[in-house]
Formats: sequence, structure tokens, C-alpha cells
Amino acid sequence: MEASRPLDALNKARNKKVIVELKNNKQFVGTLISFDIHINTVLDDAEERIDGEVKRKLGTIFIRGDTITIINTV
Amino acid sequence: MEASRPLDALNKARNKKVIVELKNNKQFVGTLISFDIHINTVLDDAEERIDGEVKRKLGTIFIRGDTITIINTV
Amino acid sequence: MEASRPLDALNKARNKKVIVELKNNKQFVGTLISFDIHINTVLDDAEERIDGEVKRKLGTIFIRGDTITIINTV
Amino acid sequence: MEASRPLDALNKARNKKVIVELKNNKQFVGTLISFDIHINTVLDDAEERIDGEVKRKLGTIFIRGDTITIINTV
Amino acid sequence: MEASRPLDALNKARNKKVIVELKNNKQFVGTLISFDIHINTVLDDAEERIDGEVKRKLGTIFIRGDTITIINTV
Amino acid sequence: MEASRPLDALNKARNKKVIVELKNNKQFVGTLISFDIHINTVLDDAEERIDGEVKRKLGTIFIRGDTITIINTV
Amino acid sequence: MEASRPLDALNKARNKKVIVELKNNKQFVGTLISFDIHINTVLDDAEERIDGEVKRKLGTIFIRGDTITIINTV
Repeated sequence: MEASRPLDALNKARNKKVIVELKNNKQFVGTLISFDIHINTVLDDAEERIDGEVKRKLGTIFIRGDTITIINTV
Repeated sequence: MEASRPLDALNKARNKKVIVELKNNKQFVGTLISFDIHINTVLDDAEERIDGEVKRKLGTIFIRGDTITIINTV
Repeated sequence: MEASRPLDALNKARNKKVIVELKNNKQFVGTLISFDIHINTVLDDAEERIDGEVKRKLGTIFIRGDTITIINTV
Repeated sequence: MEASRPLDALNKARNKKVIVELKNNKQFVGTLISFDIHINTVLDDAEERIDGEVKRKLGTIFIRGDTITIINTV
Repeated sequence: MEASRPLDALNKARNKKVIVELKNNKQFVGTLISFDIHINTVLDDAEERIDGEVKRKLGTIFIRGDTITIINTV
Repeated sequence: MEASRPLDALNKARNKKVIVELKNNKQFVGTLISFDIHINTVLDDAEERIDGEVKRKLGTIFIRGDTITIINTV
Repeated sequence: MEASRPLDALNKARNKKVIVELKNNKQFVGTLISFDIHINTVLDDAEERIDGEVKRKLGTIFIRGDTITIINTV
């Protein structure tokens, strides 16, 4: 079996719900539509959350990869 | 169907209204004119907003890509 | 019509007055003389402004691109 | 004997428990599934910990490499 | 006439007095001896200044380009 | 005699005790096992120290190069 | 006469005493042994100084280039 790569985990999460956390501690929840090698990421039906509470509904958002700390597949 | 890429979402938003948020928490609203692979972005009829209030009207602005956190298509 | 690119907006602003804002929140107003792909930028007749007030007159300044957040064509 | 390289140490830790610490001081514990040359890292059965206490259970997480300070094989 | 480039302005300032400002707000005044595409810069007869006052005399200094915000030709 | 290069100093320190200091001011002491051109570094028998006191014993750690300020060969 | 380059100034300082200042405001004094294009730098007989006072004697240190602001040849 060949070793898996980190982007494989993101590929499996396409069209599923993910939580994206940013360096500024903002947290976005939405459906993972796409990502690239810079980890630039597009979420659909995105919501910004603070302490688990929905702060605002955002529709489609593009997140610049270098601002991301973790992506949690849920 | 081939997998979509993050810049596809920005391409769809050309000539439409977007909200761009920066690492310094500033927020700019305007019409998306252009972007490149660094996510350098040009907005027309741009306004800076704070807590949803228009702070200043700016006309055309060039935003350096590495300062952007998210682009919200609205 | 082919899609425009972000540097096109800066090209149009050559020899015109622009406002350049930096990551450290400093603001410089001057005539846009030149820029490159890193967004290194040269302004002539430059002034540093704070809250719209001229803080100091600077003549010609070279601004390192990675310190810039937005360039506002006025 | 040829000199070892840093990624060799991560290779040995595959499928084992590791602790990943981030620049924002967050700490994640989990099974190391994969990593790449940017040190983008995927953990399974991941938990966020604060002062040794489990703060939240996260399942599978992708951690962007540039946010990582150290990876401790345990 | 072909468009000028930002490094042209620095070339004109060689062997002349310039003020270099850093991201940490330090300010160095000296004779511009050399620079490269990263904006690594060497000043001769350099002085560090705070609020226009000479804080210390430094002789020749090498300034790493990525720490520079602006270079003011005077 | 040809000029030495910075990585030569790290090569000499292989299998010896070094102190690695990070941008977040953390300090790790251990045996230098390996490093690469990004200064990604692996230490064995590593300890985190604060003001010369051992804070925790860590075994083998991978340190991402871009978080390092200095490596002191002792 | 061809224009000099910034690394020429560092070359002249080899085997001489230099002061290296970091982005975290730490200051190291020592003999410049080597440097590379990233400005990774090795000092021998290095001392950390605070306000001109020796804080600790360090022997040989490797300083990661991207943490350096200025190198002062003395």
C-alpha cells in the first residue's frame, strides 16, 4: 500500500461538511466545494461560528489558503 | 464531472458584488473586476465597512492578495 | 472580451494620484510612478497622512510590495 | 551511513500517536496519517488539548504545515 | 517611452542619502551603497533615528529586504 | 581555502547537543539528528526549557524550520 | 565600475566582528563566519546583548536568515 498524502483527506471530504479554522481564530462551517495545493478553499452554505453559535450566514466563500490553520472533516 | 477549483468560484463572481475581508479585519464591499493566482483583487465602487456601516467610499481599489482572508460572494 | 487582470488597474493609474495603505496602517498619497509584479511601488510627491491630515512630506518613496494592503486610485 | 533527513523522523511516526503544536499555541494529539514537504499533516482520532486536558474531540483533521511549530513523536 | 520600474528609483538614489523605515518602525538614515531584487540594502554612514533624533551611529549596515517598508530618497 | 557556509556549522553539530530557540521564545535542548535546507530540524532526547529549567521531556521532536531563530551548538 | 551588491558588504565582514539584530529585538555580537543568500548566518564567540550589556555567552550560533533585520559591521 502506498503512503497516503494530506490532500487525499481533503479529497474525501469534497461535498461534505467541514469546519475551517483561521489564524485569526475565526471558524467557518460549510460544504467543501474545492481546494488547491495552496489550500485555497471554497465552502458553500458557509456560516461563521463563534463558540459553536452561528454568527452570520455567508453563502459561498473563498478562503485564502495561507490564513487557514486546520480543516476538520465532520 | 471533473473536480472544480477554488478560482472557479471567483470567476463566477466577476462583475458581481463581493465582500473581501482582510487579515487586519477591514472589510471591503464592491464589484469584483479582476483577480490573479496570488488573489490580488480589484474591486470597483468599493466601500470600506465597519460592522455593516459604510465607513468610506473608495472607487476602484487594488487589494494585495496576501492580505485577504475570505472573499464572500453575495 | 478577455478578462482583465489586477495589474491593469494599476497600469491605468500610472502618473495619477493614488492612496497606498500599509499593513502597519500607515497611509501614503502620491503620484504612481511605477510598480512591479511584487507590487513594489514608487510614488512621487508623496505625503504620509494620518486621519486625512498630512503628517509629513516625503518626495519620492519606494514602498516594498509585501507591506501593502490596498492601493486606491482616486 | 548516510545522514538522515528530518522527514525520516516523520515517516517513522506514521500510524503512531503524535502531538502537533501550532504557532497559536494550540496542541493536537492524534494518529499521524500523512504529511508532505510543506509539513501539511493529517491526524486521525485527533483531540485538541489544553494543559494536558482534552478540550474537544475532532476526528480527522488536516493541519496546514506553515502553522506548525513542532511535532512530537510519543 | 517605456514604463519605469520601481528599482529604477533606487538606482537613481545610489550614493545618495536615503531614509529606510522598517516593519518594527525603526528608521535608518545613510548613504545607499547597494540593493538587490529582494530589497536587501546596504547603507554607509548609517544612523538610527527616533523622532528625528540620532539614537546611535552605526557605520555600514546590511538591512534584510523583507523587514523594509519604505525607502525615502531625500 | 574556500568560504564556509552556514549549514557547515550545523553539519558539525550532528549527534551533538544543541539548543534551538523559536520565534515564540520556546527553547528546546537535545541531540541534533538531522536538518534540511529549510532548517527543519529533528532533535532526540529533547527537553523544553524555560529560564534554564526543564519544563517537559519530549523524546524525539521535529521542529519546522521557519519557526526557528537560532541554533546554538554547545 | 560595476555596481556593488549587498552581499559584498557581508563578504568584507567575514572573520570580523558584527552585530546582528533580530525581528524579536534580540541582539547578537560575534565573529561572522559564514552566510548564504537567505542571510542564514553563523557567528563565532557569540554573545547576546541587551542594552549593551552581555546577557549570555553562546559560542557558535546559527541564525536563521528570515529572523534578521540588520547586520552591523563594526
